[in-house]
Amino acid sequence: MVSATEEVLRRHGPEKTTVLDVARLLGVSHGSVYRHFPSKAALREAVIRRWLDHVRDELDAVLRERTAPPDRLRSLLTTMFTAKWAKAREDPELFATFRALAAEHSTVSSAHVGFLLAQVRAVVADGIASGDFAAGEPEVIAEAVLDATSRFHDPAHAAEWQSPDIEAKSAGVISLIIDGVRTR
Amino acid sequence: MVSATEEVLRRHGPEKTTVLDVARLLGVSHGSVYRHFPSKAALREAVIRRWLDHVRDELDAVLRERTAPPDRLRSLLTTMFTAKWAKAREDPELFATFRALAAEHSTVSSAHVGFLLAQVRAVVADGIASGDFAAGEPEVIAEAVLDATSRFHDPAHAAEWQSPDIEAKSAGVISLIIDGVRTR
Repeated sequence: MVSATEEVLRRHGPEKTTVLDVARLLGVSHGSVYRHFPSKAALREAVIRRWLDHVRDELDAVLRERTAPPDRLRSLLTTMFTAKWAKAREDPELFATFRALAAEHSTVSSAHVGFLLAQVRAVVADGIASGDFAAGEPEVIAEAVLDATSRFHDPAHAAEWQSPDIEAKSAGVISLIIDGVRTR
Repeated sequence: MVSATEEVLRRHGPEKTTVLDVARLLGVSHGSVYRHFPSKAALREAVIRRWLDHVRDELDAVLRERTAPPDRLRSLLTTMFTAKWAKAREDPELFATFRALAAEHSTVSSAHVGFLLAQVRAVVADGIASGDFAAGEPEVIAEAVLDATSRFHDPAHAAEWQSPDIEAKSAGVISLIIDGVRTR
């Protein structure tokens, strides 16, 4: 049913998709769709949650890499940005839905930010433990890392992600950050 | 005439302000306003240019401070953010005009970004010369510094600037950046 919702969202856009559209596509009563998704908002959230879960799995795989913490932090951030850029480019309707949820501070997007923060914090804590990163509070540092990279993951900047220099720009900021957290 | 335009913009908002409104307020023919500002866009740009020139003067004053480059960089960034935050809060109509110009990539806002970049580059170059900052290309580093602080100066983030933790967040990112550029 989440797949059907995805298809309808792509076809009609996030604003116009209704529970009835999904029921029609599945050939079921709209009551049975309502039992799963009691509102239009619940439909949109389910689709976006599925995508964000997928992004989280990709990032978890990076966290399991046996690389040095500075390399792992670079890889984590690059993977995070690339997933967003690809979605914005290849699936603009779903991305618009994600952007709308983020603007509304939906629990789905707040939970996602919480996961990203936990993932960055894990690498920062590893780096402090290994002596690669200077001592500090991993939570505070992880927040600063996400804030400093807003331009590359915050949907408010999606229009700039089509620019050919976005990759070079993000590499510049990532290097600045990694130098910022390293032991001196 | 720029002051009259400012007043009209504040009263009617950036979308609705016309050359005729300004002429009416000044009690002159609209032909004489047109001689100065041939279009609605020219009116808006003149008002925003005046504000941005004022911000630039404030930042130039920071650049003349005889403090160590790391402190000067912190002071430059803090002054830059505070000017934007104050304008967004205290003068929302003018700020909306600025935001619209930035979204349209107006020459006024591109020139402003160019000035900011030159100011950050100047402090970075001073810091490299004094040995406070690690060797590098000041232009490239200055771009990374502005990209890493987008959240605090890019009008796309204006809604977040009302948040009580914006000052702590910006201080966290500035510290990360200054540690990132320092000699190690």
